[in-house]
Amino acid sequence: MSPQETEIHQCIDAWLQALRGKQLARMLADYDERIVVFDVKPPFQIRGQAAIRQHWEESLPCFPDEFDYERRDARILHSGDLAVAHWIFHIVGWPAGHPAAQMWMRATVVLERREGRWCSVHEHVSVPFDPENGRPVGDPGR
Amino acid sequence: MSPQETEIHQCIDAWLQALRGKQLARMLADYDERIVVFDVKPPFQIRGQAAIRQHWEESLPCFPDEFDYERRDARILHSGDLAVAHWIFHIVGWPAGHPAAQMWMRATVVLERREGRWCSVHEHVSVPFDPENGRPVGDPGR
Repeated sequence: MSPQETEIHQCIDAWLQALRGKQLARMLADYDERIVVFDVKPPFQIRGQAAIRQHWEESLPCFPDEFDYERRDARILHSGDLAVAHWIFHIVGWPAGHPAAQMWMRATVVLERREGRWCSVHEHVSVPFDPENGRPVGDPGR
Repeated sequence: MSPQETEIHQCIDAWLQALRGKQLARMLADYDERIVVFDVKPPFQIRGQAAIRQHWEESLPCFPDEFDYERRDARILHSGDLAVAHWIFHIVGWPAGHPAAQMWMRATVVLERREGRWCSVHEHVSVPFDPENGRPVGDPGR
């Protein structure tokens, strides 16, 4: 793994560690001011640091008090000052019977390096939905 | 715009033109063999050229005979041999009353340059869903 790929892994891992700890300031530290987020839930798109801060302030209290973040099928693509990572994941720790307990999601994260530091410029998190019944499909099928 | 950014725009525009014409062979020509697609509808993830071919073979007949693809808020990020484009869009041409007629979607496309030619290595297309009622939200809110 190249030194830059190590940095990219560390950037993503640090963000996930901040999420697990619900450490909002640490989560926000790596967002570029021009971040555009397509999240699994509304709003339709979130543009800029102030909007993503508000989104996380509202979203973090909905997470379980303690949880884990299980990733699969991660891939990182990298060239020059741009990197893309994608994976599938689910949150482990919802109470039994919670609607999100069995839901897997898909994540794409785009990082840019500015002055030697990787920051997030775009994130896209979603579940597919079944056009037959309009319901989300959170089963990765394995 | 740099020559490479012009190439990236042309690659995306050519793919959209092929989609409008339902020209499957042209659509598939720019997919890398290791493509991973997170589409708006199941399957949860689509891995590789054969799987994406089957997905489009099943999906294209569901599109209107004639349609347009309206994009907004497009942004392209580029460094070295990697490029990311994201935008929001909707398909214009569904019959009135069709469930998809008013639905906007979010798209993220990742391109890699191989031997001077840009090809798609990852795509993520989705709508957010409302956790209160489990329904997709296809309104960009403007």
